[in-house]
Amino acid sequence: MKLPIAMLKLPNLFAQNYRIYYEDTDAGGIVYHPNYLKFFERARTEFLRSKDIVQSELVRLNNLLFVVRKIEIEYLSSARLDETIIATVKSIEFRRSSIIMTQEILKDDKVISTLQIVLVAISNISFTPIKIPKTITSKFN
Amino acid sequence: MKLPIAMLKLPNLFAQNYRIYYEDTDAGGIVYHPNYLKFFERARTEFLRSKDIVQSELVRLNNLLFVVRKIEIEYLSSARLDETIIATVKSIEFRRSSIIMTQEILKDDKVISTLQIVLVAISNISFTPIKIPKTITSKFN
Amino acid sequence: MKLPIAMLKLPNLFAQNYRIYYEDTDAGGIVYHPNYLKFFERARTEFLRSKDIVQSELVRLNNLLFVVRKIEIEYLSSARLDETIIATVKSIEFRRSSIIMTQEILKDDKVISTLQIVLVAISNISFTPIKIPKTITSKFN
Amino acid sequence: MKLPIAMLKLPNLFAQNYRIYYEDTDAGGIVYHPNYLKFFERARTEFLRSKDIVQSELVRLNNLLFVVRKIEIEYLSSARLDETIIATVKSIEFRRSSIIMTQEILKDDKVISTLQIVLVAISNISFTPIKIPKTITSKFN
Repeated sequence: MKLPIAMLKLPNLFAQNYRIYYEDTDAGGIVYHPNYLKFFERARTEFLRSKDIVQSELVRLNNLLFVVRKIEIEYLSSARLDETIIATVKSIEFRRSSIIMTQEILKDDKVISTLQIVLVAISNISFTPIKIPKTITSKFN
Repeated sequence: MKLPIAMLKLPNLFAQNYRIYYEDTDAGGIVYHPNYLKFFERARTEFLRSKDIVQSELVRLNNLLFVVRKIEIEYLSSARLDETIIATVKSIEFRRSSIIMTQEILKDDKVISTLQIVLVAISNISFTPIKIPKTITSKFN
Repeated sequence: MKLPIAMLKLPNLFAQNYRIYYEDTDAGGIVYHPNYLKFFERARTEFLRSKDIVQSELVRLNNLLFVVRKIEIEYLSSARLDETIIATVKSIEFRRSSIIMTQEILKDDKVISTLQIVLVAISNISFTPIKIPKTITSKFN
Repeated sequence: MKLPIAMLKLPNLFAQNYRIYYEDTDAGGIVYHPNYLKFFERARTEFLRSKDIVQSELVRLNNLLFVVRKIEIEYLSSARLDETIIATVKSIEFRRSSIIMTQEILKDDKVISTLQIVLVAISNISFTPIKIPKTITSKFN
C-alpha cells in the first residue's frame, strides 16, 4: 500500500487533536480498532458544529437523525498510550438523503487510518429516510 | 486487605459467566477498570430478567427508569484477555424509591472485585424519584 | 436455543447470541455504531476458539498478533435495548499473512449488518507481517 | 474558555472541559454511568502530565504502573448529548504505595458527580505494591 505522501498538501476541511488514554487502548498495547470510529465521530461532530449544525438540535427541531449506513476503514499503522493523533475531515458530499464523508487519522504527519462513511438522514419518528433540508446543505456552498 | 474466604459459602442470588475479550482490556494488559461496571450491569440485568423485570418494559409501560445514584467498587485482583470471570448478585434490598445491591466478580473461585450500588427509580418524564411499585418488590418475597 | 430457520439454511460457519445492554446503546436509542464491531469480534474470537485457536496463546507461544487491516461494514437496520441479536461467521479465507472473513448480525431472522474484515498476522516484536503458520490454516481443511 | 465563577473560588487543582458525544451516552439519553470514570481518568492523566508525570514513561522507565484499588462515585445529576462538562481534580494525598484523589464533574456550575479514588503503585513485573518514588511526590510540595 502506498501512503498518500501529498496528504499534508491537501486542503483538509477540519482537523482536531486527541490524546490516547487508557480507555482507547487494548491488551495489544495499541488503540482498540473500533475506537478509531470514536475519534472519527468526534471530529465529524465538531466539523458540523463549526458550521452551526448540532445533532441534538436537529433531532429536537427537525426530527432529523443521522444514522451510519456504511463504513470503509483502513488501519495503516497504530497509536499507543499517551501519543497524540489528529482526526480530520477531508471531504463532504451531499445526496438527497445521505452524506458521504472522507476522513483521516494522522500521527506524526503520517496517515494511520482512512475512513469513508455514508450517513443517512432519517426521521426519528418513522425511522425512514428524509430529504436533507437546504438549511443544512446551504452551509457548504 | 483480607479476602472474604467464606464467600463461596454465601448464597449468591445469581451468577453469570463472561469471557474477557479485547474490548474489555487496556494497554496495561488487564480489564480496564470502568469495564468491570459493564459486567456488573449485565449480571444485574439478567438477574432482574430472571424475575421477569425488564428495564425497557418498565420505561415503556411504567415510565420508570432506574438510574445509578452511588457506587462503591473495590478492585482486588485483575483479569486478562481470554480468561473467564463470574459476575454475581449477592444481595438486594428495597427502599421506597431505591434499590441497594451487592455484587462480586470472581476468577478461579477468588473474588477479584466487590460492588455496592444504589439505584434510584425515577420518572422518565419528570426525572424525579418515584415509589417502586409493589409489582416489582413482590417478586422478591 | 433455537436458531432462526432461515439462518440454518445459510452456510454459516458459526453463530453466537447476544443480548443488547445499556453499554451497547447510545442516545439515539439504538446500538452505537462502533459497538457492532465488538459483537463481530466476540463471534470471531469464539469461532477461532472452536478451532482451538486462542489469541492470547498465539501471542505468548508464537509472538503472533492478529491486527485489523481493513473493515467494510454495512448497517441495514438497528437493534435496541433488551433485544437479542445473532453474530455469525460466514466465510474465512487465508492468504500468506492475512485472513479475510465475512460476518453478519441478524435480528429476528433479518440481516441488520454485514462485515468484511481483513486481519494481518504480525510479529508482536517487530510489528511486521509474518506468514500464518500451517498449524493454524490446517484446522480449516 | 471561561471557567464557571463558582468553581474558580473552589480550591480545584485542575479542571478540564469535555463535550458529550454519542459514544458517551446510552439509550436512557444520558451519559452511561461507567463513562463518567473515563472523564475522571482523562482529567487525572492531564493533571499528572501538568506535573510532568506521564504514565507510559513510568512503566517504561520505572516499571511502575498505577492501578485502581477502590472507587466511590456519586451520581447527582446527568449530562446529555452535546452538553459540556468540566472534570476537576480537587485533592491529592500520598501514602507509601498509594494515591488518594478526589474529583468532581460539573455542568453549568453544578456538581453532577463526585469521585474518591485510591490508586496503588505496583511493579509491572511482580504486580506487587512498590513505594512511590520521591521524584513523583516531590512535585506536589
